[in-house]
Amino acid sequence: MDIKSYLAESKKLIDGCLERLLPPEDEAPATIHKAMRYSVFAGGKRVRPILVLASGESMGGDREALLHLGAAVEMMHTYSLIHDDLPALDNDDLRRGNPTCHKVFGEAMAILAGDSLMTRCYQVLAELPKIQDSVKVRIVSEIAAATGTINGMIGGQVVDLESEGMPINSEILEYIHHSKTGALLTACVRCGALAAGANPEELQRLSDFGSKIGLVFQIVDDILDITSSSEMLGKTAGKDEKVKKATYPALYGIEASRKMALDLASSALKSIDNFGEGANALRSLAQFIVSRTA
Amino acid sequence: MDIKSYLAESKKLIDGCLERLLPPEDEAPATIHKAMRYSVFAGGKRVRPILVLASGESMGGDREALLHLGAAVEMMHTYSLIHDDLPALDNDDLRRGNPTCHKVFGEAMAILAGDSLMTRCYQVLAELPKIQDSVKVRIVSEIAAATGTINGMIGGQVVDLESEGMPINSEILEYIHHSKTGALLTACVRCGALAAGANPEELQRLSDFGSKIGLVFQIVDDILDITSSSEMLGKTAGKDEKVKKATYPALYGIEASRKMALDLASSALKSIDNFGEGANALRSLAQFIVSRTA
Repeated sequence: MDIKSYLAESKKLIDGCLERLLPPEDEAPATIHKAMRYSVFAGGKRVRPILVLASGESMGGDREALLHLGAAVEMMHTYSLIHDDLPALDNDDLRRGNPTCHKVFGEAMAILAGDSLMTRCYQVLAELPKIQDSVKVRIVSEIAAATGTINGMIGGQVVDLESEGMPINSEILEYIHHSKTGALLTACVRCGALAAGANPEELQRLSDFGSKIGLVFQIVDDILDITSSSEMLGKTAGKDEKVKKATYPALYGIEASRKMALDLASSALKSIDNFGEGANALRSLAQFIVSRTA
Repeated sequence: MDIKSYLAESKKLIDGCLERLLPPEDEAPATIHKAMRYSVFAGGKRVRPILVLASGESMGGDREALLHLGAAVEMMHTYSLIHDDLPALDNDDLRRGNPTCHKVFGEAMAILAGDSLMTRCYQVLAELPKIQDSVKVRIVSEIAAATGTINGMIGGQVVDLESEGMPINSEILEYIHHSKTGALLTACVRCGALAAGANPEELQRLSDFGSKIGLVFQIVDDILDITSSSEMLGKTAGKDEKVKKATYPALYGIEASRKMALDLASSALKSIDNFGEGANALRSLAQFIVSRTA
């Protein structure tokens, strides 16, 4: 499998689906729809929806349903970026190489654009095509848990904010990474599989794969923040060290962090080694996540 | 029916349910759970959950299911209050007689507390007890639409913000009131009925009742902003006029606005005049909403 063209093709499908599922820019009130679209189409790599797609397709899931699900989680991810970038939180001016939402539309509209994307995400989840109601309900529940306060995205962000400038310890670091980024990445893999009707054993294996790959993703993110330029990252580089964020390289050094990422990726691959050729996209994706440079 | 004791008893039941459904204050990360609870338990009248309860019980719905649904919409309402009060939006220091969430916990935590309450709302909706999955999915979809950007709560807030200081016209005023407050109030009545298995005709009548009572609620709110003191309202009075908000009294005068509210309330009651005694709570609630003084 050529991962580059797989990623490019998947991104195109997902962007097309997002285009259809987001309110048009000329629909009133136009400002909020412009702000939502500005951030959603600001050059994201679509890692989360591609995980949904690759996981669901490894189980023979319906592509249209998985694209809707993927688009929904990308809206969720984008809401979290918009709110995290706000002056009261991370105060970031640059995201994916572009000025952040509040820089372009003002703080009020950025707060509301984040709110709207979360709202639209749940509406899309409740209206997933070709998916049983019992599965939709479970997906809404899993996504809400993964993005909530207890071991979820918001919980991770709270602890991250509260730990800035404090001495780093490995327990807190793991909590932050597991919750802030890992939980939603794992939920992407799980929900893709649920939408495709995976059985409990398959779901367990994919959860294991997802949580390991989620951690790899975050460790690599931490490393890139140190080793890459802002231009390559499309966001302000070196920021973690400046605000003394708890990161893997800060705690273990860059080389040990790299080794941890490689070991985790190889362990993630083992979780799905009894899956057939249908899981090749998922395997390539794991390779890509551990070796990415931006 | 003694409406005062009905309201007090319902509020107690709803507060008990919110107590059970919100994460405990000592659960980590504690700060965000404290912020969520601070705003949810800051003395709200629970109008929305009581509408859910009265509507659902008029159709013979299960009380436990309706309480969960009511608690979820109250979380949604509270998220909208927390975000609306932020400095970047309405910049309000006082809400329900208490300092607003960002005044107590800071802006970052207030933004995240709002996000968390919306997230928890959807999780509770997806996990409603004793409700069929097909109904849960429909409720998630209706609540998301009622709080979204197109004719929903966020859309109303956007137009409200954009209209401040502009000349008022009746079309924009109606859009704001219908979307910002009316849509969720109507959804409360509709979803209560859906949870209770209402048939399409009953649902239509209750929707009509809900949208009229929603508008009454907002007109009375506008009037009280002028005629009441901050102390009675528990929020900053006279603020609408100060920031030149589009309101019914500003456009039509206080007396004409009062008459509109009374006419609408009587028309709302007509929509449900063929309902039996089970709808008496709903009828008393309509009377209460039109005659309230705080």
